[in-house]
Order: sequence, then C-alpha cells, then structure tokens
Amino acid sequence: MKADEVAVSPQDRGFRYGDGVFDTLLVKNGKIYQLAWHIERLRGGLNATRIKFDIGSLEGLIQLLLKANNFIDGLLRVQITRGVGGRGYLPEKTISPTILIETIEKPEISDKAITLWQSSYKKISNSALPVNFKLCQGLNSTLARMEAMENNCFDAVLVNEKNEICETSSANIFWFKDNVLYTPALSCGVLEGSIRAAIIRLTPYKLCEVAQDIESLRGADAVFITNTAWKILAVDELKSLGMKWQSEELVKQFLALLNDDIDNS
Amino acid sequence: MKADEVAVSPQDRGFRYGDGVFDTLLVKNGKIYQLAWHIERLRGGLNATRIKFDIGSLEGLIQLLLKANNFIDGLLRVQITRGVGGRGYLPEKTISPTILIETIEKPEISDKAITLWQSSYKKISNSALPVNFKLCQGLNSTLARMEAMENNCFDAVLVNEKNEICETSSANIFWFKDNVLYTPALSCGVLEGSIRAAIIRLTPYKLCEVAQDIESLRGADAVFITNTAWKILAVDELKSLGMKWQSEELVKQFLALLNDDIDNS
Repeated sequence: MKADEVAVSPQDRGFRYGDGVFDTLLVKNGKIYQLAWHIERLRGGLNATRIKFDIGSLEGLIQLLLKANNFIDGLLRVQITRGVGGRGYLPEKTISPTILIETIEKPEISDKAITLWQSSYKKISNSALPVNFKLCQGLNSTLARMEAMENNCFDAVLVNEKNEICETSSANIFWFKDNVLYTPALSCGVLEGSIRAAIIRLTPYKLCEVAQDIESLRGADAVFITNTAWKILAVDELKSLGMKWQSEELVKQFLALLNDDIDNS
Repeated sequence: MKADEVAVSPQDRGFRYGDGVFDTLLVKNGKIYQLAWHIERLRGGLNATRIKFDIGSLEGLIQLLLKANNFIDGLLRVQITRGVGGRGYLPEKTISPTILIETIEKPEISDKAITLWQSSYKKISNSALPVNFKLCQGLNSTLARMEAMENNCFDAVLVNEKNEICETSSANIFWFKDNVLYTPALSCGVLEGSIRAAIIRLTPYKLCEVAQDIESLRGADAVFITNTAWKILAVDELKSLGMKWQSEELVKQFLALLNDDIDNS
C-alpha cells in the first residue's frame, strides 16, 4: 500500500496507549544489516510486552515489501502493536496484533560533531518497563529531545534514578578514556541498540560496560553516540555541564569499521 | 463520523510513540461531570507534554458530539496527540495535533468487592514523565493489569521506586483506618484522578494524602479504588500479600455521596 493510503484504527492500542514495539533496520545494497539480530530483539520485546505475534512470518513480509518498493538503500521500520481491543488498559483475550512495515528514505547524516544537553527528565526505569527493547512509549525521549533543541543542542543525554548515565533520547552513548571504550551496561536501563551491539563486537579497544555517574564523561578523550539512522555521531560538547571533547578522529576510525562490517555482512 | 469510519495515520505520533494525552469523562443525564476540572487537567497535561492545542475549543467540540450522538449517559473519551510529523522522537516544528472525541456506552459496574495483586512492575517515576496527567503511555498499566488477571485478580497495585504505594493500573486507591481516610500524595507519582478529586472534596472523614509503604494497607478497616469508569470499587483482598478487608459498607457510603454529587452538579 502507498504510505498515504495506510490507515490505522483509532481503537488500535498503539494509538491509544503506545502499546507496541518497533524496530528500525538498515538496508544497504538490498541487504538488511543484522536482520537475525533485529528479529531476536523484536522477539524479546514481544515477549517482554506479552504481545502475541508470530515473529517467524516477519522476514517474509519484509522481503515482500523490499521487492515491491524496489528498495535498495535506506531504513526499514517495523512496528507491531497489540492490536484493536479493550477500551481500558486490559486488552481483550482474542486480540490480534497490528503490523506495519515501512521503507524510509536514507536520512542525511552530518559528519559534524554534535552537542548534547543533560535532560531534566530521568530515563524510565527498567523496573517499570522493559526498556532494553524498543517500545512505542516515546514520550520520555520526545520530551528530552525537545528540551535539548530548545537549548540549541542536537540531543539530550539521560540518567536513571541512581544518576547513572544511560543513553541519549535517541541513541546509545560511548566514551573513550585511556585506551578503553566505555558504554552504559544494559542493567542501567539502556536500549540494546543494534549499532551499540556492532560497536561492542567490532571495537579494537578494550570495552567496558559500566554503571557510572555522568561526571565520568568529564576528561574523556572522545565521546560518540550510535543508532541505526545516524550510525555514529561524534560529540564535541555536553553543554549544560561544560564538558568538551575532540571526538572526530576516533569516530572516523569506528565509522570505517562499521561501514566495512555493513558492506561485508 | 461513525466509529468504524474514523482512521488515523500510522504516521501519527500517537500510534508511533503514544505521544499524547487523553481523558475519560462521565456523562449523566446529558451533563458532563466536573467538565471544567477535566479541561484544567487536560490543559496541564498538554503543557507538561508540550503539545500545542487550543483547549478553549474543546468544550464546543464535545457538545457538538453529544448532540450529534444524542448521548445522555455513559463515558466520553478525549484523546489529543501531537499529530503527524517527525519520523524520530523529535516532532516537526509545524506539527498540528490530532484530536479524537468518542462517546462510549456506560460500562457495567459490578458492586462486588474486587481483589488486587501487587504488580511486579514499578510505577513510572514522575521524574521521567509527568505521570500526574493521563498520558497515552499505557504499557506500564497494561502489563500490570495483565499480570493481575493472570493471577486471578481484578487489578494490580503499583508502588514507586521508593516502594511507596501509588495507585492501581487503572484507578486511584484509598484506605480507611481509625476514622481517617488515606490516599497516596500526588508527589508519589500518582495520576490526579477526577473521582479521587471528588472523594477528597466530599469525604466526611479527615483525609490525609501520604507517602507510605504498601504495608500501611495491612490492618486498614477498608480499602477502595476509584476511577471514572468504575466510580468506586470495594477491595476485599490484596492477594499476593495476604491482606483482607471488609470494605463494602464504607464504599456504599462514599458511592451515595458521589452519586448525589453527580446528580446535583
């Protein structure tokens, strides 16, 4: 279907409550990067949210869409909601999920370093929601990113209730210090991003997944953020805390490793 | 429009991210209970979520729908999302909100006491989201209520990160002990429910808004939960913690006060 012909029921629990999961996948030269990994993450998200969907059918549906759209390079977005049923929070027992798969033009990615703001919103705790997965519960991220933009920063970094650094509104975060690469541990309440997973697999440096205060970023040699749409963006400033870095050289190195991996996988 | 003719864009941020607010209002004899109060709460929710909608137009739209549907008794549901625009978390600057108003048949309300389960999910913190308002971020409540039903309980009670009792998945909670009525303070991270507000206004007993451990419920003389759809439900058991109460007499008294207020307002 053409994008503007697709319609969703306002009774869909996705619309009512953000009751679903989604995923964004990278398509390069007609191939989907880390497809099996994405399907496993979606399976985890569906289990964690108790949404019943036969994930085994997904790859076939995706391939149909890629072919129909003659889609070679760009992003693919998959959203699975719990479906239509139940006015209140309790879904009907017979509910069947809604699935939406879209191809999206490759976004323009700047190679300039970006600036961060520390969000005044804390990250939603993993004791309240299974935040390691991509849930259709985007208000926390939306508010954090809007606040960053109002402060002339590109994105916002969020900490959890224990003030441990987690991620930005839209990306995972890494920092490099004394030849060690650091990133927040999933147990801090961090989305398990696909580029995060790739960086952990590809890094030539020692990698530590840590639970650390945001002040750990001060004095880092380089900082960068990662997601499927942006790949890797260098960070040169955390404006609200007066921290600055020279991150572009390191990002060039990791971007080369990532692009090689995408081309050869 | 007929309910089954209404369609929402899958690009709507309500569907993508639960990026919106909603409200449920009680209609009795063609009159909306506490309309001004609901409009103020919606205004607060829109401000807190930075959604730009002219709330001044809402009452006129609601009255149009009530008239068109010749709707006298039941529920009215209003949902306002941020609208269509922005693939990622950052909305487009020119975005305009989507508004959906529905009339819903009066639900059947049992007058039997219900059972509660303590949710294994914590309540989302008010440091992460403005949870005093009705946000379209219903996954936490949905998961909690599904878990309760799986354990043969009607609803689940949630505590916050500090283990302070907050509310159930779908309702506010009150308990009565030594002639004092208690309910969690909004600062615990509690939805400011409209029936909660009415009970606080109507109670003939001393009312204390408190931050207390869930163990405070043990030894209470009566426990009840409140929301617009259910009004007031007596609770006779918190099954997972082995607590039991005789709550029906007190609930009868409060229900009479509430029904009087609805009829005479």
